[in-house]
Amino acid sequence: MTENKTLQKVTPLGSREGLIAIEPDNWRKEALILATEKAGGTVCSADEATALIWSAPENPELLPNFVREQHDWVQLPFAGIEPFLAMLDERRVWSCGKGVYASAVAEHALAMILSLKRGLVSYSKSENWEKPFGSNLLNSRVLILGGGGIAEELISMLNPFGCSITVIRKSLLPISGCDQVLYLDDLDVVLPETDVVVVALALTSETEGIINRERLGLLPSHAIVINVARGKHIITTDLVNALKSKDIAGAGLDVTDPEPLPAGHDLWGFSNCLITPHIGNTPEMGIALLAQRIEENVARYIAGEDLLGCIDIGAGY
Amino acid sequence: MTENKTLQKVTPLGSREGLIAIEPDNWRKEALILATEKAGGTVCSADEATALIWSAPENPELLPNFVREQHDWVQLPFAGIEPFLAMLDERRVWSCGKGVYASAVAEHALAMILSLKRGLVSYSKSENWEKPFGSNLLNSRVLILGGGGIAEELISMLNPFGCSITVIRKSLLPISGCDQVLYLDDLDVVLPETDVVVVALALTSETEGIINRERLGLLPSHAIVINVARGKHIITTDLVNALKSKDIAGAGLDVTDPEPLPAGHDLWGFSNCLITPHIGNTPEMGIALLAQRIEENVARYIAGEDLLGCIDIGAGY
Repeated sequence: MTENKTLQKVTPLGSREGLIAIEPDNWRKEALILATEKAGGTVCSADEATALIWSAPENPELLPNFVREQHDWVQLPFAGIEPFLAMLDERRVWSCGKGVYASAVAEHALAMILSLKRGLVSYSKSENWEKPFGSNLLNSRVLILGGGGIAEELISMLNPFGCSITVIRKSLLPISGCDQVLYLDDLDVVLPETDVVVVALALTSETEGIINRERLGLLPSHAIVINVARGKHIITTDLVNALKSKDIAGAGLDVTDPEPLPAGHDLWGFSNCLITPHIGNTPEMGIALLAQRIEENVARYIAGEDLLGCIDIGAGY
Repeated sequence: MTENKTLQKVTPLGSREGLIAIEPDNWRKEALILATEKAGGTVCSADEATALIWSAPENPELLPNFVREQHDWVQLPFAGIEPFLAMLDERRVWSCGKGVYASAVAEHALAMILSLKRGLVSYSKSENWEKPFGSNLLNSRVLILGGGGIAEELISMLNPFGCSITVIRKSLLPISGCDQVLYLDDLDVVLPETDVVVVALALTSETEGIINRERLGLLPSHAIVINVARGKHIITTDLVNALKSKDIAGAGLDVTDPEPLPAGHDLWGFSNCLITPHIGNTPEMGIALLAQRIEENVARYIAGEDLLGCIDIGAGY
């Protein structure tokens, strides 16, 4: 497996003692303490620490209570950091879970693709021996929006299927195993030639609503759309209409807008719309993967080496 | 993708004109004409042709009406050729669809594995934002019963997931990408260390009922069982009981005993049992895969090269 590593120099000044606070106290903390200590760090209070590992993606509002002037590194737990963006400053290095969950999320994307193409979403609901239907992923044309860790992992998982793979990203740097890399400007050109769209990019003002009525209309009617990124990448009403009018053959959504998707929402009503409750990585999968990253980053922090998953504050991810 | 290729020299005497008959006329014929012409062949009547492509697996009895003395090659459509066996002669080369459909069946097996492990079978039925659950295929221990084309394709599809893979087969010849190859005698030893069992072997007196009460009991309770071979490989009553008593975590069955599975059968009642109606390859998938093989074989025939999928008349397949 490949890993999406964003490297950034914490300091050119060499090693540190490794006094690290892990806050707040919750079910994740124990695994993170173990990982930190395994890497040679010492867990202490925020006041004593020179760095902070934040264990609560669900509580951004508590973070300012724990960040101290002397903290030169703050590690956030998830890959998506929208709720923390306003708190980031240039006085220290901020890192996040970028790339940590990529293989788990890519696995979920592939699971949704295969379930939809193979008709398993329908067969799961049936209690009768139905007529055969479904189509192959083999030799399909897959379009991945985003060129980060999820894309890299998914490309490697798609490799045995002989798919032709296009990635849309900000830079045209080649990606191993992918047939072409294009800019966002080329999206509308490639959509009519696409069997499977996978949304796997960061949510920014540029990418919000990237899947809209016009673009859903450009897809062939046998195409499916998968979203493992953020619900707001897709304009929900437009997706509902596209499913209603059979502009596309199905959708697999691990994220929705609104999220959680309320009971009774139109999207629940489609037999060809698979909705999962943001489980690209479940808490159980995630804590194991996060602990690995924390161990690696604490070791790097102590040694004064580049950290993994550093946030580019200007870019917003 | 790997391909199960059985090679045989048609003739050492070099190229031919490529006058090929495709009979009888049915829904498959158009795709086979396209494939033949794409490879440089000319489709003509049986009397004019030097080779025959048979388009009707369901009509072996019509074949003798179309085979001519001058035909030096006859291509049959399916991998299983039992109904044609009596008609084969040594005066020409006979080839069939051996290996053509393995990748489609392996794809279906992977789809069922991922659907069960990722909880998609349950989520497909839900109309509410449920609690997160599911587990990764990543790093799992997979046991494949059978070492043929389906196993080879599945192993290549599992490769990016970092699984440890054991194959049970008749010979201990190594299989690329698999961690160990064992005899049937070792099955009971490896079952307790298995997360995913895939049944993908031929049905013989030796393998009928290979998955029974004792063996289901040897699996860990989080294990899942997939059958893409024949329904009679699993003793259905034993599987029902194992699901009832939660000896295993789920099953994915593309084949059943009895088949079709009648409405009201116990197996329909389990939320963790995914049943699909023998669609490892559907007719639509099959014709696309067969067309690829025909294109390849016609090109080889014209060039006087070895053909794929030649039948060993003595062995009967």
